[in-house]
Amino acid sequence: MNRCEDGAIFTIFGGTGNLSYYKLMPAFYQLHQEGRLIKRMAIVAIGRREKTTKDYIEEVEVAIKQKSKTYTKESFDDFKDHIYYYEMDFADDEHYPAFEKYMSELDTAIEACGNRVFYLATLPNFFPTISKQLKTYGLLETRGYRRAVFEKPFGYDYTSAKKINEGISEVFGESNIYRIDHYLGKEMIQNIHMIRLSNQIFKGVWNKHSIDNVQITVKEDMGVGDRGGYYDQSGALRDMIQNHLIQILALVAMEPPADLDTESIRQEKVKVLKHIAINKEEVIFGQYRGYTEEEKVPSDSLTETFVGLKAHVNTERFQGVPFYLRTGKYLDTREAEVIVEFKNDSVYKNLEASMESNLLVIKIQPEEGIYFRINTKQPRSENRLMPVSMDYCQSCNIVYKSPEAYERLLLDITLGDRTLFTSWEEIEHAWRIVDKLMAGIENKRDYIFTYEPKTDGPSEVHELLEKEGHVWWCLSALTATYFQDLEVEDEH
Amino acid sequence: MNRCEDGAIFTIFGGTGNLSYYKLMPAFYQLHQEGRLIKRMAIVAIGRREKTTKDYIEEVEVAIKQKSKTYTKESFDDFKDHIYYYEMDFADDEHYPAFEKYMSELDTAIEACGNRVFYLATLPNFFPTISKQLKTYGLLETRGYRRAVFEKPFGYDYTSAKKINEGISEVFGESNIYRIDHYLGKEMIQNIHMIRLSNQIFKGVWNKHSIDNVQITVKEDMGVGDRGGYYDQSGALRDMIQNHLIQILALVAMEPPADLDTESIRQEKVKVLKHIAINKEEVIFGQYRGYTEEEKVPSDSLTETFVGLKAHVNTERFQGVPFYLRTGKYLDTREAEVIVEFKNDSVYKNLEASMESNLLVIKIQPEEGIYFRINTKQPRSENRLMPVSMDYCQSCNIVYKSPEAYERLLLDITLGDRTLFTSWEEIEHAWRIVDKLMAGIENKRDYIFTYEPKTDGPSEVHELLEKEGHVWWCLSALTATYFQDLEVEDEH
Repeated sequence: MNRCEDGAIFTIFGGTGNLSYYKLMPAFYQLHQEGRLIKRMAIVAIGRREKTTKDYIEEVEVAIKQKSKTYTKESFDDFKDHIYYYEMDFADDEHYPAFEKYMSELDTAIEACGNRVFYLATLPNFFPTISKQLKTYGLLETRGYRRAVFEKPFGYDYTSAKKINEGISEVFGESNIYRIDHYLGKEMIQNIHMIRLSNQIFKGVWNKHSIDNVQITVKEDMGVGDRGGYYDQSGALRDMIQNHLIQILALVAMEPPADLDTESIRQEKVKVLKHIAINKEEVIFGQYRGYTEEEKVPSDSLTETFVGLKAHVNTERFQGVPFYLRTGKYLDTREAEVIVEFKNDSVYKNLEASMESNLLVIKIQPEEGIYFRINTKQPRSENRLMPVSMDYCQSCNIVYKSPEAYERLLLDITLGDRTLFTSWEEIEHAWRIVDKLMAGIENKRDYIFTYEPKTDGPSEVHELLEKEGHVWWCLSALTATYFQDLEVEDEH
Repeated sequence: MNRCEDGAIFTIFGGTGNLSYYKLMPAFYQLHQEGRLIKRMAIVAIGRREKTTKDYIEEVEVAIKQKSKTYTKESFDDFKDHIYYYEMDFADDEHYPAFEKYMSELDTAIEACGNRVFYLATLPNFFPTISKQLKTYGLLETRGYRRAVFEKPFGYDYTSAKKINEGISEVFGESNIYRIDHYLGKEMIQNIHMIRLSNQIFKGVWNKHSIDNVQITVKEDMGVGDRGGYYDQSGALRDMIQNHLIQILALVAMEPPADLDTESIRQEKVKVLKHIAINKEEVIFGQYRGYTEEEKVPSDSLTETFVGLKAHVNTERFQGVPFYLRTGKYLDTREAEVIVEFKNDSVYKNLEASMESNLLVIKIQPEEGIYFRINTKQPRSENRLMPVSMDYCQSCNIVYKSPEAYERLLLDITLGDRTLFTSWEEIEHAWRIVDKLMAGIENKRDYIFTYEPKTDGPSEVHELLEKEGHVWWCLSALTATYFQDLEVEDEH
């Protein structure tokens, strides 16, 4: 191994934000414990607040103690040498010459070989500014790699996203840009196309002839908390649907890619994105009661904390198959899953009477795994069926403990693997879908409904499916009530 | 309900055989406990041995105590009034006039309305004789139904079976004949076509395009015991393959029937039977070491206690898909299952490297249920797969306790439902398959191999599959070694 592959400076803009303390640092720590952090890695957290590296490390330790189950004093002492705090106002260009000098010296000190990662966990409007300053003040003039990572949200709509993208692209070039969609780092999201493509029993039925509808649900059970200021600028459609849920949809609906590499999968996802349409008549916005009293939320806010919608995927493979998406805050459970509901028709009328649709559930969180609902003959009966559950719980098995999404993503960044990051083309088309939908909505007040906290959203979202003869499936509800509904009866 | 539906005499020829004591009587007892035995039912056991009904009832009670988990003194006392013992030599026609008189009086006494079932649990060569005597001596001249049940084996080959069938048909007519294949009474055998036809995910893949091979295994873990005399006349091919395994094959391979009634399913099974071929080069016979020393077994016996073979199903749906069948005595486990192995190909070479075939297992015994092996991404890896198990155990759930096969069959006989009995046409074609195979074998000595008791048969049966690139799957082995073989490794 080339010695230079083993050194790098990883700079975090927004180093004193929650993301750094509770996601990035614990992920780095985990990689360190597993011996997968590159050896001469300096993690430089940038913040405006006055504090020493020692202060910062103490704060990080508190956060890691809280988040990591494997924390030990010993390994943290070992890990903490990677951490540096650098005080600057990244919005002020006068700070950059000193920063350049600092980086240059650090590079020499740890032998980073000029390898640099800039992680921008800031508001998106700073993305182009910071990028430009990095270039202007020579921070990118090194002999190693220069990679830039951008946290979500990537813009507010197509126009703003495009502007951001132009700003960062001319500095870094697409091949050095890593746009975070941390859902793509989740094990079961990465598993979607693997399950589809590596199982003969699914290969033949993954189309409109066999699938009745697809449901993608991401429920959160907490309100916005102290993040109301940020959240109110975005809302569930932009914060969740535009990126996470539409990405999941694309993975479910895409054609088999030519190969399993980044570029081939991206191409197929983009093809699907170009064929997604959402009608304003098929969208339900919700806002939980009490949202407008949350800290930093305007009292007249029309920001949605819930969205449920029907997406049309107008491809040869899925034309006519509804993709139902819903996500929201302060709901009844914390649960994310993809449910593929297969057609439930039969040429045998006496079978059909007791037949339930096959459901394939890809469980994303909190449990990871696969669940199946299939029909089997009810014992002692002649032609009466009953649905039964077949379950595989991946997260239940200690041997297969999945990494945290950020752990995987940080590792990939240092390895230069962009597979799990979103390309500009994907973002562009996802914004176009959202923009087109929003352009049709003159008065949002007509589309938004209040729901009670800890419920499953506004009742209108159920009507959306009912009128098409469908129901929202929810794995936690399915497994809870399973055997209660079954009537065991003899036909004789 | 018509009062006459509630009365019948059920006569068992061979009433002192093991089948009567350990299968039929416990099944009747179970039906009685469940309140499903018809009210005025007389069960008349016929035997040559001199004993009273009281003696016989005592013997039955011993057997039921042994077999039934739900035995209670109280309910047996209630049940025992149904039982009668009648002493006669059914081979001697002089006994029939008295028997006729006995039946006639019993009929009047219990108000059986002339409903009669004759259950022939005798050697098959007695089937036509007994039938003829019943007719000659007027036992069938009643105003109720007259049904005849014939235990296996139904002949020794096509010629003998045909002769038997002609003898019984001219007496009873096909619609009153119930040929027992008790495997058809097993819950999971009845479930095969239900699983196929009521699950969208299987409907599209149940063909040669998706299925690589099918394996039907029925293993017994005991030797012939004291039944060597009977067994040596038949052997595994005639005792198991010709009826049970070929019936299972037909249920797996048949086209979807026009309807789910008896006649429609039979038609489809017969269509498949007409297209089955077995080559003598693809059959392995085995005999366990020590078989020729068993009681009543000739020391030079060439009777096989094991058969493993490849059957060709030359239908549009399954042409080219091998159906591997194996059954034997004194093997390593007691286990019966159907395993559908799906094709394991992929356009992605890097996936294929770690991909295992999908297996669908229909578990017949000892556990009943469904098992699936599917591929999922190995956590932390990029494109490496691992096979995981999804399991549904029906027999584990007390609510769905399956009835014993004979319980279901006896009930169906009294109800006049012939669905789970084999038609002459099915038997005819199954014998033709076996006859054709045996006709090609000049010297059986060349085809039979010795195997050690408590092993999984002669090693030659593994070579049979190996040369086609297949292996015999065995659920108990699959589930036992599952997680041991998996290497959890990180690609980074």
